[in-house]
Amino acid sequence: MRISIVNPNSTRSMTETIALAARHAAARGTEILAYQNDAGPVSIEGHVDGALAVPGLLHALAIAERDGADAHVIACFDDTGLEAARSILKGPVIGIGEAAARMASLVARRFSVVTTLSVSVPILEDNLARAGLSGLCASVRASELPVLALEADPEAANDKISEEIARAIDQDGAEAIVLGCAGMAGLAAELSERHGVPVVEGVSAAVKLMEGAVTLGLKTAKRGGYAPPSPKDQGFVYPDGMVPARAEVEA
Amino acid sequence: MRISIVNPNSTRSMTETIALAARHAAARGTEILAYQNDAGPVSIEGHVDGALAVPGLLHALAIAERDGADAHVIACFDDTGLEAARSILKGPVIGIGEAAARMASLVARRFSVVTTLSVSVPILEDNLARAGLSGLCASVRASELPVLALEADPEAANDKISEEIARAIDQDGAEAIVLGCAGMAGLAAELSERHGVPVVEGVSAAVKLMEGAVTLGLKTAKRGGYAPPSPKDQGFVYPDGMVPARAEVEA
Amino acid sequence: MRISIVNPNSTRSMTETIALAARHAAARGTEILAYQNDAGPVSIEGHVDGALAVPGLLHALAIAERDGADAHVIACFDDTGLEAARSILKGPVIGIGEAAARMASLVARRFSVVTTLSVSVPILEDNLARAGLSGLCASVRASELPVLALEADPEAANDKISEEIARAIDQDGAEAIVLGCAGMAGLAAELSERHGVPVVEGVSAAVKLMEGAVTLGLKTAKRGGYAPPSPKDQGFVYPDGMVPARAEVEA
Amino acid sequence: MRISIVNPNSTRSMTETIALAARHAAARGTEILAYQNDAGPVSIEGHVDGALAVPGLLHALAIAERDGADAHVIACFDDTGLEAARSILKGPVIGIGEAAARMASLVARRFSVVTTLSVSVPILEDNLARAGLSGLCASVRASELPVLALEADPEAANDKISEEIARAIDQDGAEAIVLGCAGMAGLAAELSERHGVPVVEGVSAAVKLMEGAVTLGLKTAKRGGYAPPSPKDQGFVYPDGMVPARAEVEA
Amino acid sequence: MRISIVNPNSTRSMTETIALAARHAAARGTEILAYQNDAGPVSIEGHVDGALAVPGLLHALAIAERDGADAHVIACFDDTGLEAARSILKGPVIGIGEAAARMASLVARRFSVVTTLSVSVPILEDNLARAGLSGLCASVRASELPVLALEADPEAANDKISEEIARAIDQDGAEAIVLGCAGMAGLAAELSERHGVPVVEGVSAAVKLMEGAVTLGLKTAKRGGYAPPSPKDQGFVYPDGMVPARAEVEA
Amino acid sequence: MRISIVNPNSTRSMTETIALAARHAAARGTEILAYQNDAGPVSIEGHVDGALAVPGLLHALAIAERDGADAHVIACFDDTGLEAARSILKGPVIGIGEAAARMASLVARRFSVVTTLSVSVPILEDNLARAGLSGLCASVRASELPVLALEADPEAANDKISEEIARAIDQDGAEAIVLGCAGMAGLAAELSERHGVPVVEGVSAAVKLMEGAVTLGLKTAKRGGYAPPSPKDQGFVYPDGMVPARAEVEA
Repeated sequence: MRISIVNPNSTRSMTETIALAARHAAARGTEILAYQNDAGPVSIEGHVDGALAVPGLLHALAIAERDGADAHVIACFDDTGLEAARSILKGPVIGIGEAAARMASLVARRFSVVTTLSVSVPILEDNLARAGLSGLCASVRASELPVLALEADPEAANDKISEEIARAIDQDGAEAIVLGCAGMAGLAAELSERHGVPVVEGVSAAVKLMEGAVTLGLKTAKRGGYAPPSPKDQGFVYPDGMVPARAEVEA
Repeated sequence: MRISIVNPNSTRSMTETIALAARHAAARGTEILAYQNDAGPVSIEGHVDGALAVPGLLHALAIAERDGADAHVIACFDDTGLEAARSILKGPVIGIGEAAARMASLVARRFSVVTTLSVSVPILEDNLARAGLSGLCASVRASELPVLALEADPEAANDKISEEIARAIDQDGAEAIVLGCAGMAGLAAELSERHGVPVVEGVSAAVKLMEGAVTLGLKTAKRGGYAPPSPKDQGFVYPDGMVPARAEVEA
Repeated sequence: MRISIVNPNSTRSMTETIALAARHAAARGTEILAYQNDAGPVSIEGHVDGALAVPGLLHALAIAERDGADAHVIACFDDTGLEAARSILKGPVIGIGEAAARMASLVARRFSVVTTLSVSVPILEDNLARAGLSGLCASVRASELPVLALEADPEAANDKISEEIARAIDQDGAEAIVLGCAGMAGLAAELSERHGVPVVEGVSAAVKLMEGAVTLGLKTAKRGGYAPPSPKDQGFVYPDGMVPARAEVEA
Repeated sequence: MRISIVNPNSTRSMTETIALAARHAAARGTEILAYQNDAGPVSIEGHVDGALAVPGLLHALAIAERDGADAHVIACFDDTGLEAARSILKGPVIGIGEAAARMASLVARRFSVVTTLSVSVPILEDNLARAGLSGLCASVRASELPVLALEADPEAANDKISEEIARAIDQDGAEAIVLGCAGMAGLAAELSERHGVPVVEGVSAAVKLMEGAVTLGLKTAKRGGYAPPSPKDQGFVYPDGMVPARAEVEA
Repeated sequence: MRISIVNPNSTRSMTETIALAARHAAARGTEILAYQNDAGPVSIEGHVDGALAVPGLLHALAIAERDGADAHVIACFDDTGLEAARSILKGPVIGIGEAAARMASLVARRFSVVTTLSVSVPILEDNLARAGLSGLCASVRASELPVLALEADPEAANDKISEEIARAIDQDGAEAIVLGCAGMAGLAAELSERHGVPVVEGVSAAVKLMEGAVTLGLKTAKRGGYAPPSPKDQGFVYPDGMVPARAEVEA
Repeated sequence: MRISIVNPNSTRSMTETIALAARHAAARGTEILAYQNDAGPVSIEGHVDGALAVPGLLHALAIAERDGADAHVIACFDDTGLEAARSILKGPVIGIGEAAARMASLVARRFSVVTTLSVSVPILEDNLARAGLSGLCASVRASELPVLALEADPEAANDKISEEIARAIDQDGAEAIVLGCAGMAGLAAELSERHGVPVVEGVSAAVKLMEGAVTLGLKTAKRGGYAPPSPKDQGFVYPDGMVPARAEVEA
């Protein structure tokens, strides 16, 4: 099968980290199609970055589906544009934030999220609430590391994240940890070793969930919450390749 | 004072209806600055339309603030881009959805929303939940009128909306009604008369709430939920006029 | 228009502070009618004071409506008797507690309330829960200042309140502050200046919300939650002027 | 032991029905002291009646405690003035609404309340929510019988209540029924027989719960939610016998 | 009347402590039938102990009903097997955890639970949530005393529990305390004295609630949540005496 | 990798259906180890059947882990004994109920569960609530088909399930369907075809989730919610092979 993974930001090195993590998690027989949103910000930190990234992200996802992707991963922990993506695509779509949290909830009764900047905390809290996961989340903690600092100095980054993990376990009663940024892909194993709790990273979690959904033959529901936009009588034309699901639905 | 009202879609007739309703509600001494998002869809129906409208909407709001607006109204009942807007603007910002619901909650213990298409219902339900208003909302009902049909045939539109209002009162226990589309501005008085319950329309509700906020000297909080995006070390430049609040915050 | 503001307690100096704040917030063309409940306690601190204040408060509100008030403000942060008031009055009614919290929620995602005594905290928490605002409230903090101490030594009072505001911001993540007592009217501007966050005071917030409601032509819904008491076949006569809404409703 | 039961309204026949039910439920060795609030409305239907009844009710409860009552029952299904009562009395206090709902929750996972007029439904829903019982309550149904009609024509009353019980079981999935009015005391056994589900009546439930609390040596907590009002430096004198708990607390 | 109390574990000394507390709380005329689950673990600490205890516990309860018990108490604070017990027994059944929490909620707005080991905390939190009591519970604290240590060194145990009570009051705002283990029966009075707050112990609370339920003539509802298992066409035979309620229900 | 799947009931034909569905869903390289609980009831319908099945189920799981299983599936939609299982096993464990619901939540905003008998509905509702999925669940519907009837007459079973699916879509707004019984494995594809919505079956969903968890290297957290039982000083010996995780944890 083919799974697309789209980095909503325009930083190539992150796209490469993400693609690597995705391919490393993928089963034999799964092809990973990696895309980057060149129209997006260099990193997504807060509501504004997210909002500016969505149109390009949706376009990339529409192209991915045209390229034959059976399922899709949005590689930002904010699950940027997830609901709009589910409204235009036939295949299942997941964001790495929801993916990591759902996977963590299978191995722990309470998990904490350790993310980058505090500007993202309320966004993650709202996402968890909408997904029904607030009650399973002990805390969302910010390491105050900018996204791109993760690559600039991995050593230092690793330490700051590790400190927050320790606090989440000791002070918040976290039983497992969710790494709250695509840039943290690859740190999970060592941090789990160091702290003696499960540590879940979203890119690989999302790939496995999408492999599962494809194997089960699942597609995104097209009535209700993820119904596609209704046709416009007037002028407006959706960007090339957007809303391919329309025909499906009208049929 | 100056209050800006931005129509996130590109339909001029709607922008005019909205501006008219805003000016009609404004106090003496309040100047209404009306903007239209020419880059947006002709109407906003569902997640995709909303996502595509946000960048142009944010740009219009940034310009409005540069033009001296003290507060801002997003004239789509989905509260499109509200959190991103609050993250870049100094003045208070409200969407007409939140405005109408908050005003209705002052005169009734349970209100129902009557909107256009069912594709918007889950979006409105999520917005109400995030604003803490789910418990006060008896139901969100769709009249299945496309946004633009409101203008094409007002007579017919009025009847369909009126039918849903009757159902909300009789079947859902609604004590007041919220009109769930900017295009419905101007129907409130007659529908309230006809059904004998308070009927709240969002454009005028939003103008009064923003007048109040400005009089109280309130500005949008800049820590936590509405903190502006953090500065990017690399290339990315925000569209002209975007993130003017940045200086404020770094100061 | 005419807006009545009723001090449910019998302390004249507080009634004057309240009336002053109301008139200061009112738009040109708004007449403020101020009332005091001489039958009430000298201050409202806890459930018992509140319960004893209500009958006199309702009577004052009924008189205010007879005096031509278009809307009403209950000037106690506990929103004393709010639901009973909405059940007897035609015009919209708000308490300063709900008013301040709703206004704060327009400019911040999480606010804290700083009130007088801890005896009031559970009452405020229950009110916020019923209004759907618990999720937006970071904390309700008591300064342990008795209501009347606010006037006895404003200097000292100001400092104690300021300390709690600092704790709410640093420890609870408050993005804005709500001043939890009518006696604090007038401190908002300076405290906002000092702490760099929006500070909302209830009397002025309530006046602006009621001006808005009147402009929108809203009256309190008379079915469901705020329905007036049903007529008694036997003896009991409501105090003079009480339940004027009855005719309305039976008509 | 002595348990006081206070009818917050002024209808003697109801007071007698209530006292009878209380004495019938009481254990050997429990003396029931019955009081009536002559200053109250003839019946309590909605927020206004409740608010007007509270001062007289509190006074009666204060007298009951002086008369040696070890625990207290407020005999109105709205739990009128419950929190204020708990703030002034040493002994435990319960309202018949909370009593019946808590007892029903011991024998069924979902119960429905069948009350008198729809004006009371929102009050009961708020009480259940505050007590954490909303999730266990399948529905609150109004028979639209005025309180006093229960005595005027018991036959007819019984039938209307029975119809609502049938609807609650068939349509709402109720597994047990709570009778939502003090005037319904005495109907429980026959209705349980007729419908084959547990039917709980509040007066007897409250008596048993208060007997239990007294046997366990429990008194109402005096810190936090039920703390007594703080002392007033100025003039205001609480009505004779009110706030006897004060000394206790200052000691 | 006869009330059975079953110790789900196999430690005779605890069974004796429990029976003693039950008989001490019982009214004149109430006979306490005490049972012990010899097939159970020596103590119930966590999900596994609980799961292994249930079959023997259900068997003991079935025998108790055959022995003429009118109501039943499960003497483990985890409310082990409560829902299964309610599904097979005619009489009302309560666990001491639910009993203590419901009784505490009658005399305090916020209570804390002080239990034995932290392994039990999530179980108690889930039980409180299902019973709708989470909102009334300030905290569930573990003293880290193993169940059997309560008897090994009562002195030391008492001190550790007392320390946690102090923390619950000072740090969590507890207004009352619930003792979270059957082995703590008998400590309530002294701890209440020492800390000046109501302290509720589950065994006696459960006995009083069951006496009340029997006096009210209540039996466990047999439709919905506590419906008995449906008959099996094939081989499987329930352990001797199990599911006696079946006939009742089919009738 | 090796994944164990345990049928908590003793009906061989169901065990075979389950094993078949699991092997059909498994990736190349995944070995499915199927177990049956011969000590369990012939089917699990309600709390009592579930409680009686758990000890044998736990034993089977302990043996499965000793046989080298890397992860485990409990093949009953009630997620029978899930928390106890997580407390004794090293590898991740999931129940088919949680698995199906989590997978459905990835492709629809609201799903309905169609199960066998109404006796199971409250159990499923409680499980969904504990997993944070209540808000995403439109309804839990019972087809009133006994578990074993699914095999006795598949034709008829299929029709009854199909009718409930239609009701869930039309009346409850379900966007996807979850099949609420292990015996329904294999019906998903055809029902999805027939109704045009995603239909999720738990056995295959659980296998894919466990494959994912193993690939991610996740093990069940051993602190907090799923901590193993604490060691007993006295006599009690856990059944052969039970609590193998103990050493792990003490280390």
